[in-house]
Amino acid sequence: MNWRNPQVRDLVLRALQEDIGTGDITTDSIVAEDRQASARIWAKADGVVAGLPLLPIVFQSLDPSVQVELLATDGQAVTAGTTLARVQGSARAILTGERVALNFLQRLSGIATRTARLVEQIRFYNCRIVDTRKTAPGLRMLEKYAVAAGGGLNHRFGLYDAVLIKDNHIAIAGGVLEAVSAVRRRLGHTYKIEVEVENMEQLAQALESGVDIIMLDNMPPEMMKEAVRQIDGRALVEASGGITEETLQEVAKTGVDFISVGALTHDVKALDISLDVELGQEAAG
Amino acid sequence: MNWRNPQVRDLVLRALQEDIGTGDITTDSIVAEDRQASARIWAKADGVVAGLPLLPIVFQSLDPSVQVELLATDGQAVTAGTTLARVQGSARAILTGERVALNFLQRLSGIATRTARLVEQIRFYNCRIVDTRKTAPGLRMLEKYAVAAGGGLNHRFGLYDAVLIKDNHIAIAGGVLEAVSAVRRRLGHTYKIEVEVENMEQLAQALESGVDIIMLDNMPPEMMKEAVRQIDGRALVEASGGITEETLQEVAKTGVDFISVGALTHDVKALDISLDVELGQEAAG
Amino acid sequence: MNWRNPQVRDLVLRALQEDIGTGDITTDSIVAEDRQASARIWAKADGVVAGLPLLPIVFQSLDPSVQVELLATDGQAVTAGTTLARVQGSARAILTGERVALNFLQRLSGIATRTARLVEQIRFYNCRIVDTRKTAPGLRMLEKYAVAAGGGLNHRFGLYDAVLIKDNHIAIAGGVLEAVSAVRRRLGHTYKIEVEVENMEQLAQALESGVDIIMLDNMPPEMMKEAVRQIDGRALVEASGGITEETLQEVAKTGVDFISVGALTHDVKALDISLDVELGQEAAG
Amino acid sequence: MNWRNPQVRDLVLRALQEDIGTGDITTDSIVAEDRQASARIWAKADGVVAGLPLLPIVFQSLDPSVQVELLATDGQAVTAGTTLARVQGSARAILTGERVALNFLQRLSGIATRTARLVEQIRFYNCRIVDTRKTAPGLRMLEKYAVAAGGGLNHRFGLYDAVLIKDNHIAIAGGVLEAVSAVRRRLGHTYKIEVEVENMEQLAQALESGVDIIMLDNMPPEMMKEAVRQIDGRALVEASGGITEETLQEVAKTGVDFISVGALTHDVKALDISLDVELGQEAAG
Amino acid sequence: MNWRNPQVRDLVLRALQEDIGTGDITTDSIVAEDRQASARIWAKADGVVAGLPLLPIVFQSLDPSVQVELLATDGQAVTAGTTLARVQGSARAILTGERVALNFLQRLSGIATRTARLVEQIRFYNCRIVDTRKTAPGLRMLEKYAVAAGGGLNHRFGLYDAVLIKDNHIAIAGGVLEAVSAVRRRLGHTYKIEVEVENMEQLAQALESGVDIIMLDNMPPEMMKEAVRQIDGRALVEASGGITEETLQEVAKTGVDFISVGALTHDVKALDISLDVELGQEAAG
Amino acid sequence: MNWRNPQVRDLVLRALQEDIGTGDITTDSIVAEDRQASARIWAKADGVVAGLPLLPIVFQSLDPSVQVELLATDGQAVTAGTTLARVQGSARAILTGERVALNFLQRLSGIATRTARLVEQIRFYNCRIVDTRKTAPGLRMLEKYAVAAGGGLNHRFGLYDAVLIKDNHIAIAGGVLEAVSAVRRRLGHTYKIEVEVENMEQLAQALESGVDIIMLDNMPPEMMKEAVRQIDGRALVEASGGITEETLQEVAKTGVDFISVGALTHDVKALDISLDVELGQEAAG
Repeated sequence: MNWRNPQVRDLVLRALQEDIGTGDITTDSIVAEDRQASARIWAKADGVVAGLPLLPIVFQSLDPSVQVELLATDGQAVTAGTTLARVQGSARAILTGERVALNFLQRLSGIATRTARLVEQIRFYNCRIVDTRKTAPGLRMLEKYAVAAGGGLNHRFGLYDAVLIKDNHIAIAGGVLEAVSAVRRRLGHTYKIEVEVENMEQLAQALESGVDIIMLDNMPPEMMKEAVRQIDGRALVEASGGITEETLQEVAKTGVDFISVGALTHDVKALDISLDVELGQEAAG
Repeated sequence: MNWRNPQVRDLVLRALQEDIGTGDITTDSIVAEDRQASARIWAKADGVVAGLPLLPIVFQSLDPSVQVELLATDGQAVTAGTTLARVQGSARAILTGERVALNFLQRLSGIATRTARLVEQIRFYNCRIVDTRKTAPGLRMLEKYAVAAGGGLNHRFGLYDAVLIKDNHIAIAGGVLEAVSAVRRRLGHTYKIEVEVENMEQLAQALESGVDIIMLDNMPPEMMKEAVRQIDGRALVEASGGITEETLQEVAKTGVDFISVGALTHDVKALDISLDVELGQEAAG
Repeated sequence: MNWRNPQVRDLVLRALQEDIGTGDITTDSIVAEDRQASARIWAKADGVVAGLPLLPIVFQSLDPSVQVELLATDGQAVTAGTTLARVQGSARAILTGERVALNFLQRLSGIATRTARLVEQIRFYNCRIVDTRKTAPGLRMLEKYAVAAGGGLNHRFGLYDAVLIKDNHIAIAGGVLEAVSAVRRRLGHTYKIEVEVENMEQLAQALESGVDIIMLDNMPPEMMKEAVRQIDGRALVEASGGITEETLQEVAKTGVDFISVGALTHDVKALDISLDVELGQEAAG
Repeated sequence: MNWRNPQVRDLVLRALQEDIGTGDITTDSIVAEDRQASARIWAKADGVVAGLPLLPIVFQSLDPSVQVELLATDGQAVTAGTTLARVQGSARAILTGERVALNFLQRLSGIATRTARLVEQIRFYNCRIVDTRKTAPGLRMLEKYAVAAGGGLNHRFGLYDAVLIKDNHIAIAGGVLEAVSAVRRRLGHTYKIEVEVENMEQLAQALESGVDIIMLDNMPPEMMKEAVRQIDGRALVEASGGITEETLQEVAKTGVDFISVGALTHDVKALDISLDVELGQEAAG
Repeated sequence: MNWRNPQVRDLVLRALQEDIGTGDITTDSIVAEDRQASARIWAKADGVVAGLPLLPIVFQSLDPSVQVELLATDGQAVTAGTTLARVQGSARAILTGERVALNFLQRLSGIATRTARLVEQIRFYNCRIVDTRKTAPGLRMLEKYAVAAGGGLNHRFGLYDAVLIKDNHIAIAGGVLEAVSAVRRRLGHTYKIEVEVENMEQLAQALESGVDIIMLDNMPPEMMKEAVRQIDGRALVEASGGITEETLQEVAKTGVDFISVGALTHDVKALDISLDVELGQEAAG
Repeated sequence: MNWRNPQVRDLVLRALQEDIGTGDITTDSIVAEDRQASARIWAKADGVVAGLPLLPIVFQSLDPSVQVELLATDGQAVTAGTTLARVQGSARAILTGERVALNFLQRLSGIATRTARLVEQIRFYNCRIVDTRKTAPGLRMLEKYAVAAGGGLNHRFGLYDAVLIKDNHIAIAGGVLEAVSAVRRRLGHTYKIEVEVENMEQLAQALESGVDIIMLDNMPPEMMKEAVRQIDGRALVEASGGITEETLQEVAKTGVDFISVGALTHDVKALDISLDVELGQEAAG
């Protein structure tokens, strides 16, 4: 993730705008413009953090002179009580930016934490946890970053950067072979082609058409194992569809290369993180 | 919610842009431009739906001639298997818009579902479930709408539309009375003032300052009950801080008017909803 | 007002874009890029200034190295001849930004000046001057700031941050009580409810419904006085409707708490303010 | 004015966004979504109207099915009581859009009204009233349109579409001749060159340099008359600087071709215009 | 290309804004608002057209009632004199939109025409013409579409949708193998990896690292042929670097799969296309 | 050109967004965040450069600490091999920004180079090369700047800043005199009026109507010469329509003041410019 990406700053500014609107009427009434403060941002629960580099972007959007010192690194597993960052500068900027900063940080850390837990569960298998496009509208880039921070792998970012031929495409094309060849006719050579198959017949067609990745969708473990056997290294294999923490290991055992889990971003529990303000001295002059 | 609000359309367009980017390379390669299709959107789990009016906005952004028939109403409790909507028109628009439509609908329905469950738990108390500002950056308006659809009440939408004096404001002002009077000096007469208090001493000051709403933050139930007794109707009372489904009823029993629950939007499990395409005949001409 | 609010910078950039378009063809043709200059901004008439913190934002948007020294404070009454600010730096930035800077400053100072005059007129009454939503499209946040700088109080910023039930709402609801209860059913607890009443019958209903603020709309002073008597502290009272500088004191005498005056922003005479350039030495190199 | 200009729609949407924010909490609570209404927009004072074509844009942005019938024409002088337009459709759209619609219409009509009054004053002179760049930031295109609707002539729209060499440019260039020749070296052949002169010496240089338009800035009428005599048709002549309704005729008598009046847009009194809702029947279904 | 993609409409609106600014002062002065006209858009030179579906978007942005009938299809080879489209409706919309419509259409047709010429030159080789990222800033999506319309294949759309490891990446990584393995560690499984090699040593490493595509950069034909021989089907092969129409066939003969030609979009000669207005009758009423 | 114009920064950010999207997956995988590098930007062909001041804007948008030293000046003729700039700082910023930087610089330099060549061809005539509105959508401001850098003169920037009455306007108005007088009635006095004439009859009318500029459209040289003779200094004369490098001198000889050449921006061959990275030492810490 390149944090200088103009999209990142745009997301932060929109979030600030959404929260601040015409002004933080509480803070602006109570806190003098030159009042200084410092704050500690810390984890109140164990987890894997993600999104720390957003902190300076949030607070410095409100006041460029705010100093943010990061004391942890994205992807790091921290225990409850760990200080993640210190913020120093305009008290108004700190109080006004607090909620937006935490909303980003807690959400992304929640995603990283769950991802890391799943990754850990299958660490003895040659298999990787992969995300999906089931992300909060507008936040996909950040949420996928959080999956990566948690040790997961990113599937495509949108409809534009990889081909995934699904059941409906196959039905319209009139078969797997027809769908793949329609794509091949039009698609640039830099894209891989992935096909979703639901049974062994579709699998045979997918293999015949020579696609790069085969997604086994909603298959029972036994069928999955047989599919992996038949594919035999001729394509990457991805398992998908309703896989939960309970069934994860069973799926990993089938020999698939990737398991995509929508819940990584579709069932997000924010990590508990807090910002405590320590008030500084009134600025001189 | 007024679905014609320009912000709603803006959110939908941004979500589509995020997903489609330079183009849906799979669908555009396989599906002819004039191909028609119809689709059924249905719940795969029990829950309370929210966000249905976004469906026509999503699909008609991709093709204004798509027809969307809504078969359920936001706030309605549905059982698994219920058809929520039917979509008819350009097959490309349906396939390309599917994920964005579902991402909105599933997320908002997840929020409404959880809210409804909490509301149900305290239905015999004169107490309402209230949301917070702990929302996904950029989606607050929609997420708060989903809370309302689930039977919850909306707290302020941002820092601009209500005053909430928190511990840090009090510390900077030098006390509850000072903070309230600083706000009173500058604030328009149309805003209520809410103060967060953590102990009985602050409560006394809050009462003395005559604020409209008192938030009891992280108080044990016994202290809360005593606080309610002392407030005695002179202000609305809101309980806040780490309240879970387990402790909800106990808090409601204390006699508070409102219980704010960050998890409504900070711990979101998308409701399982699916879109099934039924392919139509190739359009003539 | 927090001048770091992203909306402020957006307003300034739009104003500059509107004026500069594809380029200041006069200045860019005549003034060398490295030419330095300083300028004095001063009041040519007596008044109350507002908008000075916009000056650095305007000029530094054109050249971050421009220095702006503010010599007066928003809300300060100045006499003709007073120097309000000094600007130092790129001659191009100063000449190109001059008109936008003055357009903001003169307009906001005009609003503050008129507001201050009205406030002064009723200074012996326990009554405050309040603004309305009758603002120049796009400039509401700044214009309401100018009202506050002039000593006025801000009414709601938009349709979203306070409830004001007007005649049409009452007619649709079928009465004041029905309108208020419809709002109560849906509205969050953090908003006050204000009702506009035109006669004593509506007033009785408003009192019965227990609203927070009652707006007496277009009432003759005698009726207003009677209304205040009947309200008797049970709600805040706001007078509205065609109140001019001539009738202001008479209204204040009725005992209302607030008088809203649309003319504050709907009848704006810019304060006469000028920028005089003093040319510096040609920069070396 | 082409009302399909994308900038117009952008201005309207921004104004609606500013006023509606996250929602019209009063109207949305009270008025059912399918409720219909009609409304009459009428002048409460005599004046010249401008901005009527904005009415359908405002209301149809909130609901495309709203019908707006315009009963007057921009530039038309109307008397108090004249109906200007009828609006029919969604009651919510009408109530929510009312203030934005009137803010545009009243402001622009105020500008047109004042312009028409000045134009009328000098109707027997071969001299036109001209506007300036002293407009409300963001609204210049509309305000200049209103000036034209009132019978005035538009000066340049910004720094980009005409050259106006002012005192500071002359000082930097080292004289009128130098300034003009610097501009001539770089400027495209499609632009006119206007020079502001403050005395007879500068006038002589302006004439020598062969500019297209000479602005006589802050000259006493006698000097102006002499300047017109010397120019003798070799350039267009514009009078400028502190000209008021009182001094207008005296200036027109000097023989200048144009008189620019900043007050047209810098001292705006909104024309009193009202919207009265007539409630329709509840829509069927 | 899905012409409903929100980005397309955004590009068209920006282009119109750029050209129209505050208004088409010529047309708006001369042409009555209700004047109707029809126009014929036709090729004045032989070529391959691209961008026709932009015509209705351009003209209907100015007036939704304009009718556009397309008489040719993107990718079609047309001869001078061929009518490409007919436009019917508001004369103002047609005159004001003409230049923007043609600027898009001529430019894209110019790209398609050149692409088709190169494709034709190597039609007997099993080799495809590929574009690059050397596009006009802001227009990449459309320019790549034009390449496809001309029979070319699209290389990646940006830095985000495919990996291309170039000399500088290799130098920083310390070698081809190191660069590829760095990418493999972090990259999702849906992306192909392409490596640019300049000599046989790098080629050997690229083969060893098992990349998907090998770009032979600036190699003489003999070396290219040898490279193709060594690759022997283990990777797709792309030739790149200074290939012109003169050297194209020689490169194709080496057996490479793809030849990327920056000039497709970096050396664009607009196809000569004209719009002729046929004036209609004055509209009734 | 004022490079601080907000539009310039907007163009650069859009171009970066277009190229980077959700991230430079190659560079971000291989290059460490703190890696430093320097780069040399140099011309690989003879030409006239334009757009150098965009280099710091591009690279500093990606990392504000990047240093850019410009070693040539816009408008300067350089020979192949000349170093144009040096860039120093974050290796990621340099690699990620390279293509956007070059796309701007090469395109603008291509325009300047061609313009300079045409200007040179007619340097002994009192005649200037002028551009048109045939520019790449969205890039007009920059492309016209490049024309000026190459020694050309800018015609109007859009439909808003100068009047050009073309054949269709004349046909609708019913003649040249009618068209001109329609414009005169509505147009501000700061604009020149240009009329396009195709024959001697129209020329006579144009002269009679007293326009400022007469465009001789698609006239054979003999007719042009006669037209110049008849105009006899009463208007500026511009030749237009299919003028190529081959016919340029012949046209110049006719005595016209300006020759507009659409090909300046409609037939653009990018100047060959390259960026070579020299890798620095790994940054400490």
